[in-house]
Amino acid sequence: MAYETFGHPDASLSNAVLVCHALTGDSHVAGEAGWWGGLVGPGRAIDTDRYFVVCPNVLGGCRGTTGPSSPAPDGQAWGSRFPRITVRDQVSVERAVADALGIQWWAAVIGGSMGGMRALEWAATSPSRVGGLFVLATTAAASADQIAWAQTQLAAIRADPAWRDGDYHGGSQPEVGLGIARRIAHLTYRSEAELAARFDRLAQPGEDPYTGGRFAVESYLDHQADKLVRRFDAGSYVTLTEAMNTHDVGRGRGDAKAALAAYRTSEARSVVVAIDSDRLYPPYQQVELADLLGTQLDLVSSLRGHDGFLLETEQVGRLVSGLLAG
Amino acid sequence: MAYETFGHPDASLSNAVLVCHALTGDSHVAGEAGWWGGLVGPGRAIDTDRYFVVCPNVLGGCRGTTGPSSPAPDGQAWGSRFPRITVRDQVSVERAVADALGIQWWAAVIGGSMGGMRALEWAATSPSRVGGLFVLATTAAASADQIAWAQTQLAAIRADPAWRDGDYHGGSQPEVGLGIARRIAHLTYRSEAELAARFDRLAQPGEDPYTGGRFAVESYLDHQADKLVRRFDAGSYVTLTEAMNTHDVGRGRGDAKAALAAYRTSEARSVVVAIDSDRLYPPYQQVELADLLGTQLDLVSSLRGHDGFLLETEQVGRLVSGLLAG
Repeated sequence: MAYETFGHPDASLSNAVLVCHALTGDSHVAGEAGWWGGLVGPGRAIDTDRYFVVCPNVLGGCRGTTGPSSPAPDGQAWGSRFPRITVRDQVSVERAVADALGIQWWAAVIGGSMGGMRALEWAATSPSRVGGLFVLATTAAASADQIAWAQTQLAAIRADPAWRDGDYHGGSQPEVGLGIARRIAHLTYRSEAELAARFDRLAQPGEDPYTGGRFAVESYLDHQADKLVRRFDAGSYVTLTEAMNTHDVGRGRGDAKAALAAYRTSEARSVVVAIDSDRLYPPYQQVELADLLGTQLDLVSSLRGHDGFLLETEQVGRLVSGLLAG
Repeated sequence: MAYETFGHPDASLSNAVLVCHALTGDSHVAGEAGWWGGLVGPGRAIDTDRYFVVCPNVLGGCRGTTGPSSPAPDGQAWGSRFPRITVRDQVSVERAVADALGIQWWAAVIGGSMGGMRALEWAATSPSRVGGLFVLATTAAASADQIAWAQTQLAAIRADPAWRDGDYHGGSQPEVGLGIARRIAHLTYRSEAELAARFDRLAQPGEDPYTGGRFAVESYLDHQADKLVRRFDAGSYVTLTEAMNTHDVGRGRGDAKAALAAYRTSEARSVVVAIDSDRLYPPYQQVELADLLGTQLDLVSSLRGHDGFLLETEQVGRLVSGLLAG
């Protein structure tokens, strides 16, 4: 397990905050290059002058924690030998990190999207260790639509001959398939209205869509695909996507309400946030979550769809501050 | 050009109705196996006892009219030699069909989705030949979001080694790539709520998603992909999708308002229909169209998203009847 910490633990270790990253995130949550740099840092909403922030890379990932691209004992990458894992497995190993750090209690567990799934799982399985829960743009269980979009992305990766059934790590990765998966994902992460406002039907400068050139929005998608392919492992993408598909906090626990009952009836608070333009994790899912957690929904207004959970740091920050001050 | 006709022309050829099919449709609009069989036929809303219905297969298609899979003069399929075409080209050759049939005037021109693009183009370029316009789930110009989803589908087809730059017609077609394109398309054609209601998180019978089996919605998508691959040519899919991306009824004509001015100020009527759950051609696009055509929007209520234009034949039928009775 790789993790980063920001800030310092207080004497009684009562100021630890766990931040759970999303699908292609990593442990580098704070600072200039941090994926939530506007939210986590000195004087920020999650104030590292006050809180000891811990951010582990997720099990199955490719940024330090063991995943399909990590070497197995035989020195070769795990590749297709990496087991199927669930969000529950991911939280089990995060609990081991907490134990190793001597953190018995989190002042808050915070996560959006896939990170929110883990935060919910923490509340379900270790309610007495969670002092506050902040989940945004996430769901109690992956929906048919989410599963369907994910399956289509995985089909694109597996169709790439370079995928080699997951055992490509000696050579180059399935860049084309992963790039197509990212295009699909990215479109589900943004909103129709944002794309219309930013790109309309503009041609990419220097290109003519009527003679084989690209519209600006096509160039934008190509760029998003290229960026991900350079920074993320396809095997991790498949492993984590499948973990998200199997996410269902209520599975084998009666139902989601029963799974979260101990947390809901504890003194710990919950904040549940929806992004109004989120077409991948639509707000009705967070309405359900708020009900399961015995709280009211908070709504973030954004043009930017699901990615609003990463980008609307001012609105999200105010809501996090509310929880931490509470 | 392949076309089918249903019903009989009256003496003055004043009862002809043009129906324009959508992306993967064909000329077989009526009858039991017709794609709009509930809407077109004896006693139906588009009553073939009264109207002479003409439905051509679109230029670039693969169901009779010349497209990439058709033989060129050298006997080989056109393949990559098939030119880039626009919706305007498609309507030009439909006009030639009308001329050849001696039809100077359509009692109505009717189309949904890509068919609606052609119907609009008819109104823009031959306003005096269109006695009524019925367009549903379509747009005056392809949007950034539509272009982006289309680009992602085309990337999947072109990434399939069997695509061979479009010159695969001697062998088997790029089934995997076309299947992925269809999965993407199909998800944009349906609604989140419909998938949730039909599939939720159900496992496919006999399979366990926790050990590598599929959720029911995954099996459903696999089935949709298989069906299309068996009935449709990938080259046509690419050609027609690119034609849709370049659709902009106002291009080179001032703007869309100017392009439709002659039709709007004629005595001919327009009916513009939106499907309330359409996430690919969202209702705001039809609100704009209704404004361009000087009419009010009609809204169809459906769980089934964009595909509601094909499936909600009762509601759509009432609206078509209103136009034809008008």
